This record gives sequence, structure tokens and C-alpha cells, in this order.
Amino acid sequence: MAAKPNAFYAQSGGVTSVINASACGVIEAAREHRDRIGKVFAGRNGIIGALEEDLIDTSRESKTAIRALMETPSGAFGSCRHKLKSLEDNRAEYERLIEVFRAHNIQYFFYNGGGDSADTCLKVSQLSESLGYPLQAIHVPKTIDNDLPLTDNCPGFGSVAKYVAISTREAALDVASMCATSTKVFILEVMGRHAGWIAAAAGLAAEQEGDAPHIILFPEIAFDQKKFLARVQRCVKRYGYCVVVASEGTQTADGTFLSDAGTRDAFGHAQLGGLAPALAGMVKDELGYKYHWAVADYLQRSARHIASKTDVEQAYAVGRAAVEYALAGKNAVMPAIVRGKGKRYSWRVGEAPLAKVANVEKMMPRNFITRDGFGITEAARDYLAPLIVGEAYPSYRAGLPRYVRLKNESVPRRLKKRFRVT
Amino acid sequence: MAAKPNAFYAQSGGVTSVINASACGVIEAAREHRDRIGKVFAGRNGIIGALEEDLIDTSRESKTAIRALMETPSGAFGSCRHKLKSLEDNRAEYERLIEVFRAHNIQYFFYNGGGDSADTCLKVSQLSESLGYPLQAIHVPKTIDNDLPLTDNCPGFGSVAKYVAISTREAALDVASMCATSTKVFILEVMGRHAGWIAAAAGLAAEQEGDAPHIILFPEIAFDQKKFLARVQRCVKRYGYCVVVASEGTQTADGTFLSDAGTRDAFGHAQLGGLAPALAGMVKDELGYKYHWAVADYLQRSARHIASKTDVEQAYAVGRAAVEYALAGKNAVMPAIVRGKGKRYSWRVGEAPLAKVANVEKMMPRNFITRDGFGITEAARDYLAPLIVGEAYPSYRAGLPRYVRLKNESVPRRLKKRFRVT
Repeated sequence: MAAKPNAFYAQSGGVTSVINASACGVIEAAREHRDRIGKVFAGRNGIIGALEEDLIDTSRESKTAIRALMETPSGAFGSCRHKLKSLEDNRAEYERLIEVFRAHNIQYFFYNGGGDSADTCLKVSQLSESLGYPLQAIHVPKTIDNDLPLTDNCPGFGSVAKYVAISTREAALDVASMCATSTKVFILEVMGRHAGWIAAAAGLAAEQEGDAPHIILFPEIAFDQKKFLARVQRCVKRYGYCVVVASEGTQTADGTFLSDAGTRDAFGHAQLGGLAPALAGMVKDELGYKYHWAVADYLQRSARHIASKTDVEQAYAVGRAAVEYALAGKNAVMPAIVRGKGKRYSWRVGEAPLAKVANVEKMMPRNFITRDGFGITEAARDYLAPLIVGEAYPSYRAGLPRYVRLKNESVPRRLKKRFRVT
Repeated sequence: MAAKPNAFYAQSGGVTSVINASACGVIEAAREHRDRIGKVFAGRNGIIGALEEDLIDTSRESKTAIRALMETPSGAFGSCRHKLKSLEDNRAEYERLIEVFRAHNIQYFFYNGGGDSADTCLKVSQLSESLGYPLQAIHVPKTIDNDLPLTDNCPGFGSVAKYVAISTREAALDVASMCATSTKVFILEVMGRHAGWIAAAAGLAAEQEGDAPHIILFPEIAFDQKKFLARVQRCVKRYGYCVVVASEGTQTADGTFLSDAGTRDAFGHAQLGGLAPALAGMVKDELGYKYHWAVADYLQRSARHIASKTDVEQAYAVGRAAVEYALAGKNAVMPAIVRGKGKRYSWRVGEAPLAKVANVEKMMPRNFITRDGFGITEAARDYLAPLIVGEAYPSYRAGLPRYVRLKNESVPRRLKKRFRVT
């Protein structure tokens, strides 16, 4: 078949408020190169769509609809947490992938995800050699956890950071205005299983001594109940109230999560939640203060209404760059955000080898956390502050954001054989 | 003393993202009438500030700072939940109020609050007669609960409604994009102790059949676990996922709150929270679906970053009107929002007698709730939709809203006698 090769794009893992901006970047850049790239097929529900030959034909979407992805949160094509095992452990899945790609003349593989996806993408990039099928695999970085190495930050993070910093500032004003006679301790639980980046971003809400948040709990710092309660009490005595922002991954020295619901996701990670009420219970029982708590959960990672403009622009840029890398013949790479050296924040897209990205988790450096373990340092502020700059408001109709609903038409199947991901 | 009489302004009860817009309205209108109103003194921490002679001199704030209240959430002067008992039961408090007012030549009383505050304001309005001190008391409506009678809606509500509708739409997109292999049930707990207005507003997020929220739980409808779980299961089977928005006041037929932490506030109301995890537990145990839950708590009522423009304008208007009513010699009244009769939404400020406002709770009319008890009707949509229209973004600096910090300088005390509110 002499037709131009097609591209496959899939969203992987937990979605973000700007992952669709990356999709927009991939699709728009591909459309600008119709001479070399045929169509962009998206996996329905991520990589599962490729395995089950459930492909979405993005060429059926209008230019306007694709552009509207820039301001629509979550995964427009569906996402999943399916992680491919090694070639030795599950050769059938890789062979199926190649079968589907061959049937649809797919030679470009764009995988939009976090650390686990980088690993899958790396494995796929090696298929060209091991299974003799011409395929270029480019990883498009995305994770609110901000834990990918070799990139200044991860698209998706800046917007959660902005949401958490703003929410902390707002809720703190609420508590401050009533603390004389009402709630004295407010606890906001945020995401961040192993790395405390999101909780750290709440620290940007504080401008001067005494400002909230007064305590940040990081997964990187072993939780010590006695020290925690002493600090809460000190804050209430000094400022009249205490705002705590806690990473869901807050754990004791022996690695026990403060609140582990006991269930596990497909990657074997514990499904967390309920940390905030656990902390509130300690405060109530030991100190007797009136408390309130909030758990932002999905609200924080889908809050496109208050996304960071910087984040939206970076998400779009890595999507475009992925296509450019593919056209330049690259394989097993990831477009990364590279921070400029000047005092004023600047950034560009650079190239990172996937082999050095996959399965490496970037934790908060210790010098980003204050010595007492409850706050962020100036170094952390310098790093975090530029990532939340700028507002990129979606358009509204009747008071609500106009998020796009794609047609998501299926590509006709070409294979007789069905494959079910279990 | 021939000096012009001063005004007293206080914020009462739970704060909102637009209560300061009302404060701005009061202060700006009073400043326009310097010939008849001296200074506006604000109670530090609400009515307690009056009782303890802890007054804030708002004349020390610049025009710019007062204007900035328009875009600053929560109570800039502090609020409290202190409710005055009847004159017979606590004559000392009323006598103290008059003592403080007399000492500071205060003859206008502006009380910015909800139902309980309307009751206090009414009692204060009667002091003129019973204790022989010239005083006009005007209530400025405010409550996210939207449960005041005689007003089309309550300033503060429209912004929470907008926040909840947007958050529901955003989180639902998140769940929808991953439900094939991950979370199937998402539960968002929102405020609303006795009236389901806030939860109802989430219903605006849905545009067509199948859209979230799929289930709304109202305090007005007795919770039936069997019916609830059957509906959850039906949604998951039909749509692949189910988004539930639950009022914190959700209760069974015998009036038991689904989650009652057991503590009570100063008005004797139960302090709620933890409903969402309770519902999630039922879903997990009975249906086995993977779930996530969020509790918005203070985030929803302080989210000035996404306030409703209509709400901000109405909050400001009732503040101004209160001053105009006072200057017109009125007493024991409340400026209310009156909805125009046309199809296109319009509103004006009208006058409501406090005697008919105090201690009356406006519940959701039954015809606003679908027959099955799990959704809102077209009548409810028609009522709610205009209240969230328009965005009124605050200004930003470095990615964060620039909320004003007033100087809040104290008025020098004139009384020797101290009074402590216990």
C-alpha cells in the first residue's frame, strides 16, 4: 500500500485539564503535514483502543472542534491505566498491536501519559526492531504528579498547582474571617501519591508571615503526629487559625499511608482517600479545635476553568513537537520542557531520550522543603511560581464553560480477529 | 452631640464569595451621603464586635481598597455565628448594644446575613421603641443556602451554584474519560443543610440525556438506600458511569443525617461532613464499583475566582439599597431581589418586611424536584439558570487573584466597661 502512513494517538493514565491541548497540538501539527502523515487515529480509551482495534477517526472532526480541545479538560478520546508487560511476558499484546497498526497503516505512535506510559512507549519503540515493523514511538508528557524526569515540569501540573494555590488562598480567607468563634483548623487534601509537588504548590498562596497554608504535608517527609499537632496548636495560638494542605500520599516513617482504603489500581498502587478526615479526627481528639476539611479529588485535575495559561501553552507545544520529532525520523524520545537560564522565566521544548524517562520518579528535592518539613523554601517558590502564571479562560455559554463534545466516529474494523483486554 | 449619625455594618454567619461586594455597596453608598451619614463602623467578627466595642473604622480604607472588596471573597471584617436571644432572655446584650451605639453615635444598623441574622436584625430594629434609642435596622441578605423567603434568591448562592455546576461538569468529564476501566461512580458532596438548592444547581451541568449529574440527593427527599443503589447501578449500566451530587443534609425518612459528626454549632445545628465517603462505602460494599469522592466544603463558598457576575451585581445592589432604605427612614426591612416577569431574566431590588423574613426557611418547591426525587425539573432549571450567568473574574498577579487585605484599624474605645461575649 503506497498510501501515506497514519498516526496513532492515545491518552494514558489519569487525565488532566490540559491533556486535550496536547491532543490538539498533535492533530493540528499532523494536519499541517498531510503530505507525509495520513490520518490521526485515536485509541478509544487509550491503548486499549489499539489492542481492541477500537480506533477513532479524528479526521472526521472539524478544525473548530479540534481547536476547542485547547479549552476542554479530561481525555476527549478516553484514557485507561493499562500497562503493557514486557515483550517476554506478554508477546501476544505486542503482536496484536502490530497487527492493528499494519491493518491501518499506522507508523507513528504518539503516547500521551506519565511515567508508566513512558515505559510502555519505550517498549513499543523497540518493536520496530524486535518484530520487524516500521514504527516510530514518541511520548508526549502529561501528569499532574509532575514526577517525570528530564523535563522542567509536566504538562497538567501547572494547572493543578494553580487550582490548589487559589483554592488554598480562598478557603483560608474563609477560615480567617470566622476563626474567632468558629472553625480553627481547615484541612485540604490534594493529590500526589509519592511526590509532594501538588501540595507544595499550595505554598504559593502565602505572601507574608502568617499567611496560609501554615502546614504542608509531603509524602517525602515522614508524618509525625506529635510534631504535627504541636505545629497546629502553635499556629492557632499565633494566628488564630491553621490551614493544612496535605498530600494524599502522606505517610509515616514505616511507609504506611495515613489513609489507605485498601483497594489497588491496575498498576498495583493503593487507592487512597480519606486522609483529610483522618487528620481532622486527630485535631479534634487531641486538641479539641473545631475543624473543617475538603477533599478536592477530581475537581483539581479537571478544573480547566482556572487552568494555567503557561501550562496550556506547554501542553500544546509538546503535542506539536511530538509530530515534528516523528517527521524528523526520531524514535523513543519525549519532547520535554526546558527552562531558560535567565531570571525571567522562559522555556522551550527540548528532546529527552525515553530510556532515561521511563520508570524514573522525580521527587521534590529536599532543599525545596523547609528544614522543619512543613513548608516550601524560596528555591521551591522560584521553581513553582512561573508554572501557574496566566489565565486561559474557556469560553462560556449561559454561565457554563463550553467544553467540546467530539463525534468520536469509529474507524471501520479491518481485522476479523477480536481481542479483548482483560 | 450634633455630629452626623454613624452607621454600623456587620457580617454574620457563614461567609460567601460575594458578601464583601455587599459591604462595598453599603460603604460606597454611605460615602456618597456624607451629609447624612458620618462614618461606617464595621463590627470586628460580626455582631460580637459591637457587643465588645471592637469596631473597625472603614473610613481609614482608601476608595481603591473598598472597591477591591467587589472581588475579594469571605468576610473582610470577620464574621461570627452569635445569635441574640430574645430581649427577655438576654436584656444585658441589648442594653450593651445600645450603650456602644450611643457612645459612637451609631443610628444605622446594617446586618449582612441569613435567616438567623434576619431574626437578630428584627430584634435590634425593635430596640428603638423598647429601649428608647433611635436606631434603624436594615438586613442585607446573604446566604449560600438560598433559603430566605421574599427574595428571588440570596446573594452568595448564585456563585456557589456556578462553582458546583462547573465542578460537576468538569469532574464528570474526568470520570467519563476513564470509566471503561477505572472509576465508575463519582460522588461530590456539597453544602446545604436543610434546603437542596446548592445540590440542585449541579443539575445545570447537564445539557442532554445521559449527562452528569445522574443523581442528585436533596435533604427534602428522604434517602432510600435501596432506591439509590438501584439507580447508581442503572446509570453505570446505561452510561458507563454515574455522577452523584449529594447535599450534606441528605437524611433518611426519620430525619437522621447520613453522616452526623455529632458536634453542634452555636445555633445548635449539627456539624455535618463525611457524607460522601459514607455513600461511597455503600456503593463499594453493595455494588463493588470503583469510586472516587470529593468534598468541596469551604472551597465552594469562597471560590471568588469563578463567581457569578449576576450574583456579584446583586450582592452589591442590596448593599447600596440598604443605605438608601435607611436614608428614606425605613426600619426592619430587607432589600430583596425581585425577578422580572418577562421570559428574559431581569431583576430589581424591592423591599421586604423583616418580620416576614426572620426564621422562615425557603425549601426547594416539590415541583423543582423530579418525581423520582433524583433530579431537577425544567421549572428548577428556569429558576436557577439565570443566577449563574456571567463571569466576574478578579484581577491576578503572578497567577493568583489579588484579594484585598484591609487595614481594619480599630475605632478608639469610648466605654470603660468591658463586655465579653461568651
